[in-house]
Amino acid sequence: MEQIFTDEFFMKKALQEAETAFEKGEIPVGAVIVIDNRVIAKSHNLTELLHDVTAHAEMQAITSAANFLGGKYLKDCTLYVTLEPCQMCAGALYWSQISKIVYGASDENRGFQKMGTQLHPKTVVVSGVLEKECALLMRAFFRNKR
Amino acid sequence: MEQIFTDEFFMKKALQEAETAFEKGEIPVGAVIVIDNRVIAKSHNLTELLHDVTAHAEMQAITSAANFLGGKYLKDCTLYVTLEPCQMCAGALYWSQISKIVYGASDENRGFQKMGTQLHPKTVVVSGVLEKECALLMRAFFRNKR
Repeated sequence: MEQIFTDEFFMKKALQEAETAFEKGEIPVGAVIVIDNRVIAKSHNLTELLHDVTAHAEMQAITSAANFLGGKYLKDCTLYVTLEPCQMCAGALYWSQISKIVYGASDENRGFQKMGTQLHPKTVVVSGVLEKECALLMRAFFRNKR
Repeated sequence: MEQIFTDEFFMKKALQEAETAFEKGEIPVGAVIVIDNRVIAKSHNLTELLHDVTAHAEMQAITSAANFLGGKYLKDCTLYVTLEPCQMCAGALYWSQISKIVYGASDENRGFQKMGTQLHPKTVVVSGVLEKECALLMRAFFRNKR
């Protein structure tokens, strides 16, 4: 039987969120959080609309998933996000003890890998899922801005 | 004339917030954000009550101050916080481009200095203001927990 619930499957959902951000004039980053193949949180960047640097897609998804679960730890959860998390979001993910992080495009300048932000030792990281699609959306956004 | 609006003056306000957190059974960290000697945001840690790892005092204060100012950048603002910020909070402060961060007690394990989190190049950091009082409150909290 063909596998339905792949990383690509859930990253497509994160990409849909990123597209919604794009349409609102926000830097197009989208995220979903999944437990047992079920999406329990979805969000997109809203920093401009909310005038709030903390309103990254990941931060909203963490709050939303914890709210759904009724507890602050995201053990057994996977975050799918179209862009590599920044220091702030990786720092929040550290506290959440999330099991897995899957991201699409890398952020060579401000991504947590370059910045050296520590994740929880139990967190597994997968990168490059639908990388081209995620990166294309970012490039289209910044091209429009110039 | 004696100077009223010193770093100690505003750190005392942050300490009052930390005491409120203590009374609620939260790790006792408090924060205020000040512009032109005026407090525009005050908050305390609410991670337990909200089941939310992102509900650190600093994060709430950043959101609240930006809301007050109507813009996401906290230029010309100073954050007073009783404990050295973590990776997440330092990452949020990086994005906010805040002018000054004043903290009380150091966090030798999970503070941003030890973790190597980058702040905005224009951000000035002052540490150790009312350090003893801030640290005492933390120790009292963890003593009660054991």
